[in-house]
Amino acid sequence: MENIKSYVQQHKDRFINELIELLKIPSVSADTAYSQDVIDTAEAVKESLSKAGCDYVETCDTPGYPIIYGEKIIDPNLPTVLVYGHYDVQPPDPLELWTSPPFEPVIKTTDIHPEGAIFARGACDDKGQMYMHVKALELMVQSNTLPCNVKFMIEGEEEVGSASLAWFVERNQEKLKNDVILISDTGMISNQQPSITTGLRGLSYVEVEVTGPNRDLHSGLYGGAVANPINILAKMIASLHDENNHITIPGFYDKVEELSAEERAEMAKAPFSLEKYKNALNIADVYGEKGYVTNERNSIRPTLDVNGIWGGYTGEGAKTVIASKAFAKISMRLVPNQEWEEITELFTKHFTSLAPAGVTVKVTPHHGGQGYVTPIDSIGYQAANKAYTETFGVPAIPVRSGGSIPIVALFEKELKSKTILMGFGLDSDAIHSPNEHFGIFNYLKGIETIPLFYKYFVELSK
Amino acid sequence: MENIKSYVQQHKDRFINELIELLKIPSVSADTAYSQDVIDTAEAVKESLSKAGCDYVETCDTPGYPIIYGEKIIDPNLPTVLVYGHYDVQPPDPLELWTSPPFEPVIKTTDIHPEGAIFARGACDDKGQMYMHVKALELMVQSNTLPCNVKFMIEGEEEVGSASLAWFVERNQEKLKNDVILISDTGMISNQQPSITTGLRGLSYVEVEVTGPNRDLHSGLYGGAVANPINILAKMIASLHDENNHITIPGFYDKVEELSAEERAEMAKAPFSLEKYKNALNIADVYGEKGYVTNERNSIRPTLDVNGIWGGYTGEGAKTVIASKAFAKISMRLVPNQEWEEITELFTKHFTSLAPAGVTVKVTPHHGGQGYVTPIDSIGYQAANKAYTETFGVPAIPVRSGGSIPIVALFEKELKSKTILMGFGLDSDAIHSPNEHFGIFNYLKGIETIPLFYKYFVELSK
Repeated sequence: MENIKSYVQQHKDRFINELIELLKIPSVSADTAYSQDVIDTAEAVKESLSKAGCDYVETCDTPGYPIIYGEKIIDPNLPTVLVYGHYDVQPPDPLELWTSPPFEPVIKTTDIHPEGAIFARGACDDKGQMYMHVKALELMVQSNTLPCNVKFMIEGEEEVGSASLAWFVERNQEKLKNDVILISDTGMISNQQPSITTGLRGLSYVEVEVTGPNRDLHSGLYGGAVANPINILAKMIASLHDENNHITIPGFYDKVEELSAEERAEMAKAPFSLEKYKNALNIADVYGEKGYVTNERNSIRPTLDVNGIWGGYTGEGAKTVIASKAFAKISMRLVPNQEWEEITELFTKHFTSLAPAGVTVKVTPHHGGQGYVTPIDSIGYQAANKAYTETFGVPAIPVRSGGSIPIVALFEKELKSKTILMGFGLDSDAIHSPNEHFGIFNYLKGIETIPLFYKYFVELSK
Repeated sequence: MENIKSYVQQHKDRFINELIELLKIPSVSADTAYSQDVIDTAEAVKESLSKAGCDYVETCDTPGYPIIYGEKIIDPNLPTVLVYGHYDVQPPDPLELWTSPPFEPVIKTTDIHPEGAIFARGACDDKGQMYMHVKALELMVQSNTLPCNVKFMIEGEEEVGSASLAWFVERNQEKLKNDVILISDTGMISNQQPSITTGLRGLSYVEVEVTGPNRDLHSGLYGGAVANPINILAKMIASLHDENNHITIPGFYDKVEELSAEERAEMAKAPFSLEKYKNALNIADVYGEKGYVTNERNSIRPTLDVNGIWGGYTGEGAKTVIASKAFAKISMRLVPNQEWEEITELFTKHFTSLAPAGVTVKVTPHHGGQGYVTPIDSIGYQAANKAYTETFGVPAIPVRSGGSIPIVALFEKELKSKTILMGFGLDSDAIHSPNEHFGIFNYLKGIETIPLFYKYFVELSK
């Protein structure tokens, strides 16, 4: 442990600068305008794995962006850890809300991060958290403490649904063979209280298009006489929730597991202040499904949110127009047991049925993924908990997260192994928002904690 | 009449080319990026009035865009016609749906316009129709047939609510004194069947902003636990109509005049084919207020339409975000007796009351105007009808239009005179839409018909 700490202390400036260089490349996978940047980022990751000590690295072509594979096999009889991460990032907009440009990383201090945090798109999600694993490998190789085999699989389409990763995993089961999968793409409760994510929600993401008249119309001459696609879309969206904020799609809740009173009581023990939550978001009240509290609504319950909507005249001033088309991007967060492809079908069928005769509706599925639960009595969970306990001084708390890492369920199905989600981010890191950042403390703590996971995982596997 | 026809025939190429030059200037009043173009257009109009024969022209400064005033006073004892028009145009977007650039006018033939039509933003609304009056003046001056005094008042803010015109009219009642106001900014039934608009709807146009959390949030971590401003906005918009498509704003219908069965029977005589209407718009069915037919829904009934909506991620691909804000532009078409300022207040009060505790709502009124009805027994109407009858061979039909020219009610209040709406456009001209155009036939027919209005108005006034 002291060796680890001193290695990190000695090299921390370089660790930070290397991450900053990686963050400068705008690897926005959702927007084809950035495609060369995404590819450049993949190559930078590949080079970093070589330098850190992998014996073999490879740029694996896929139908989409490449997957970077790397490995260091020290003894086929020892366990193998597979590290997964992603080098792509969310789109940075709305740009005007960033206090510094999203792809020009700067270190600033905040109340939560008195030691400074790196502000940049991808700082936490997931370049920063992924790169902790690269540096942890370097540390173990340089200090001759790597206790087992390690494989890396770093992809570039996580933010757009990981379609190529699924394709790749299905075709490379032997290459990816492992005993545990390790991912840092989640958060923890606070810098004083580590936690391990044991549950993730699934996802179904669709885009809808409502078409009325074949051209934009003058709202005076046609207003009141034809279906206005924007009004109709609003009505269709509104009808997807009832007065208790239950989702109205027939069959939507059929496979949702209801937690027992005991399980809900256990969840309620996690530290949570509703006042602080509301103050942090500057909202007068929370809002959600009747019968559930905030920490249940955002973790064990499925949801439906509009992520974007547009149609008609959105420029300055006024235009008296009835638009020909209106659009929305809609995502549903799913809980374990809900099948995302089935939910996508149920949504499509129901949404299409809502349209009156004056409009036509097109639903285009974007992507999806299954929910997931990690058992806390597994060796992987126990090893992670021992590692956190050693570096933070307190044991980690198991928590269910509302987010989705759609491929975790896929890994279990295709690779037959469990995933451990060792997240070092914080809720306040503003991932997917303007001014995303990642604490220097968190980054370095991650690099310290990961080698201990390897150590305890090998010990507990004996 | 033969003199008029031969003058138009002799000069028609020049008339068309002059209009084309005017259409090349992108005078979009809603977008400040075009402000110099709007001002350049005002100057071009001023010069055209001088050339056509006005004795006096003036660029009148206002708090907004200038108003061009021109006059030719031949005898203070003779009647005075005040011509109103506007030189500003609607924004051209969506640009990708134009088959030729909106500010590069071209002449193309269509089924309805075998003699050709000028395609450009503003071709019909209102540069083309306004310029007919300039050329009609030229014709009367050159042929020594101007039978009375004429004044022109051409503004540049009609498409954004005519705020400066109201300011100007209130301050210039003596200068604008007249016996009748003549406007060409409406349509007629067909090139075989002229019509005169006798009723207009009023307008209240507002912009709404719904704010939830103080920043964009990750929809996985927060989804289901906080009010999503887009979902809330959709719900609020949806609730503005009930299941019969009546508007639910309390007090909205209080001053709406219900037409008698006789009046509705008279309206039903206007030629109308529901099949052709649906086919022209490529819609399976019409949609509107229960208890009224299409031609009533778009003329004698008030309406509420969303003209634009936006919020969240609207780019390519998917972003799992809960937006901090969502926006919509909403307009209500009003019927005579509804007070637009009162309706704006009723809307604001009701819409704000719809918001749940988790969001805040801001309503910003854009502009508005009163509805209007012209009596068909007035001298102005009779003169217009005689003019149409002479040039088209059949009498004009009086019709109620669903559109708004917000300042017509203002003219009556401030200038104490009636407005005659001699429109030469067609429904199919696509005003406010991509590919706006104005038939060469209509343009030249307007220039022929307007001098006859002057002639008969003076004769009937004796």
